[in-house]
Amino acid sequence: MISAGTTLRAMREQKPLVHQITNYVVMNETANATLALGALPVMAHAGEEVEEMARIASALVLNIGTLSRHWVDAMLLAGRTATERGIPIVLDPVGAGATTYRTETARRILDEVGVTVLRGNAGEVATLVGAAAEVRGVESMSTGIEPGELARAAARTLGVIASVTGPVDHVSDGERVLAVANGVPLLATVTGTGCMSSAITGCFLAAKPGEPLEAAAEALAAFGVAAEDAAVGAEGPGTFHARLYDGLYALDPDTLDGRTRIE
Amino acid sequence: MISAGTTLRAMREQKPLVHQITNYVVMNETANATLALGALPVMAHAGEEVEEMARIASALVLNIGTLSRHWVDAMLLAGRTATERGIPIVLDPVGAGATTYRTETARRILDEVGVTVLRGNAGEVATLVGAAAEVRGVESMSTGIEPGELARAAARTLGVIASVTGPVDHVSDGERVLAVANGVPLLATVTGTGCMSSAITGCFLAAKPGEPLEAAAEALAAFGVAAEDAAVGAEGPGTFHARLYDGLYALDPDTLDGRTRIE
Amino acid sequence: MISAGTTLRAMREQKPLVHQITNYVVMNETANATLALGALPVMAHAGEEVEEMARIASALVLNIGTLSRHWVDAMLLAGRTATERGIPIVLDPVGAGATTYRTETARRILDEVGVTVLRGNAGEVATLVGAAAEVRGVESMSTGIEPGELARAAARTLGVIASVTGPVDHVSDGERVLAVANGVPLLATVTGTGCMSSAITGCFLAAKPGEPLEAAAEALAAFGVAAEDAAVGAEGPGTFHARLYDGLYALDPDTLDGRTRIE
Repeated sequence: MISAGTTLRAMREQKPLVHQITNYVVMNETANATLALGALPVMAHAGEEVEEMARIASALVLNIGTLSRHWVDAMLLAGRTATERGIPIVLDPVGAGATTYRTETARRILDEVGVTVLRGNAGEVATLVGAAAEVRGVESMSTGIEPGELARAAARTLGVIASVTGPVDHVSDGERVLAVANGVPLLATVTGTGCMSSAITGCFLAAKPGEPLEAAAEALAAFGVAAEDAAVGAEGPGTFHARLYDGLYALDPDTLDGRTRIE
Repeated sequence: MISAGTTLRAMREQKPLVHQITNYVVMNETANATLALGALPVMAHAGEEVEEMARIASALVLNIGTLSRHWVDAMLLAGRTATERGIPIVLDPVGAGATTYRTETARRILDEVGVTVLRGNAGEVATLVGAAAEVRGVESMSTGIEPGELARAAARTLGVIASVTGPVDHVSDGERVLAVANGVPLLATVTGTGCMSSAITGCFLAAKPGEPLEAAAEALAAFGVAAEDAAVGAEGPGTFHARLYDGLYALDPDTLDGRTRIE
Repeated sequence: MISAGTTLRAMREQKPLVHQITNYVVMNETANATLALGALPVMAHAGEEVEEMARIASALVLNIGTLSRHWVDAMLLAGRTATERGIPIVLDPVGAGATTYRTETARRILDEVGVTVLRGNAGEVATLVGAAAEVRGVESMSTGIEPGELARAAARTLGVIASVTGPVDHVSDGERVLAVANGVPLLATVTGTGCMSSAITGCFLAAKPGEPLEAAAEALAAFGVAAEDAAVGAEGPGTFHARLYDGLYALDPDTLDGRTRIE
């Protein structure tokens, strides 16, 4: 059953540890989003410790935004441990489609790790299902496929919950497609808001075990509601960015379900 | 012809991709400055992908603020690709003069890469032209040369557009020297504002091909105007920092030229 | 003698260079905290330059928040240079107790480097003195020892000034224990505030040579006062975070001693 408020309440009680191997650009941002929401972030990427960290975590978030060889190795190591333990794993394929290295690394993680949710923009996800897509740097410019259909196709082809974010987000398990209409255009003016949505997805997955489709949609809706609150009083991308953490922190489990727009 | 407004308008229409290999401290900041201004940032540093990324970019920004061997290698690889393609390249020699490694790396990049604009503080640039300079960490403490003369000498000696920032900025192609008087003292209280000015220089170079002297001066003027707006209502370095992105985002191509102070 | 105002005034006059080898998550944050306070930060981690940087610095801050092998090597190299020079060294053992790699790295640094102040949360410090502790990621969940006693025991066992932060902070040289009661609960909602307190400790140590117990307590009190000011008008973790730098910048040496709560 979909109830972002119920999942948020559980998250704040349990304070799940969310292990994130993510890019340099957004580490502070995804850690702060996780903490403001009510979960516990930990960043660790050394081969010497990623398996041990993944063993005490309740979810793992892998983000390929600034790759290099040792980081890929660490993602695979942590990913295998998380797969063995059965904890949820989120993959954010930042920039897949922009370079061969990113596309191949995302594919390799999908092959070797039991990814629960693939959270990306339309261009990245289209690239990974082999559909036409233009990705410029880390921005999706265009795809030849309707986003709801893209989510469904990605879920079927890749065997994951596909979470395709955009003006309206679409989340699918290959059968059902949930559309999430929360959020504001200012989100696109701040770097790393996509990465934040992946981290928040990890938090929701940890707090709602066994229902990854619903948890992934709730995560995007909750983030969108926080963004809507942050936009009120913001004067541009910078003040909006600061207020985004205020919005996540202020999310109220009692009123959240009345504000989410999930269909 | 100098017109920051015209260049900004072109930038927002074209949304040039600006590939940045920069330091860990400011990655989020320079990405957000690029995005708020209206261009598209991408951070990528792996040897496996920097050439491919530089091939789709419209400008390359190299920043040596937190060096290590693999990063230097990546800067040289990306820099050679950008040189071959003839896209503009900005070098920010953070901390040149503070350690031998930084000085030598900046010199090596200047030797092996077709740097278009060298954007640094007086101490860093003076170090690279062999003039007396005191650099403490990443701060310029003193030089024995007037900044306009320093810019001209650096441009001549190093064969670049030299962009020397300070209370008043000086940009030179070795003949002309443009002085830019926009900005506020609060800029010096936030780490990475120099790095942001280098990223913004990359954005302006991409949007005004063939006129790097003018584009470099316009970039600093536009950044200074945004900072002037950000300072209004700021209560210190932290709120100023957040408002700086608001200021970049709100820059108006129609009124910008009336506010820039370039001589 | 304890006087945070006097130390702050000296710091702003001398502008000590504080070399920080810290984690990716908080680099921007600790650099900005250092700068807002009135000292000069420099981040450098390459084996090629850490010794040279440590030779021109007035304090060294080592933080193990996102470890890997080359970074540990760099911390040891810089740490040995700083030890030889007799400049103050702060160690922040982020996540010690959460993984073996972090615990062992913190121990190795304590063994091989002349650490002046160990600044951590209760779980991290308890781990390093061999007491019972639960550390989840980078959060201290519980310890079996009263924090003032923990600080005293850590100081004696490890031969350092122990600075244990929490709702009330405790700083000890093994004999005296100073309790610092400044601060606000919002500090726990922003990632990296512990790391900031370590950086600020480095700044105060540099400005008050020969009195590390007093300097460490003053640092935490000054940071707490800045946080108290930042909380006024903050609407949540994000606006609080931005205002924290405003608070550090606005600290007034003339009135600070009347506001610190050190016992």
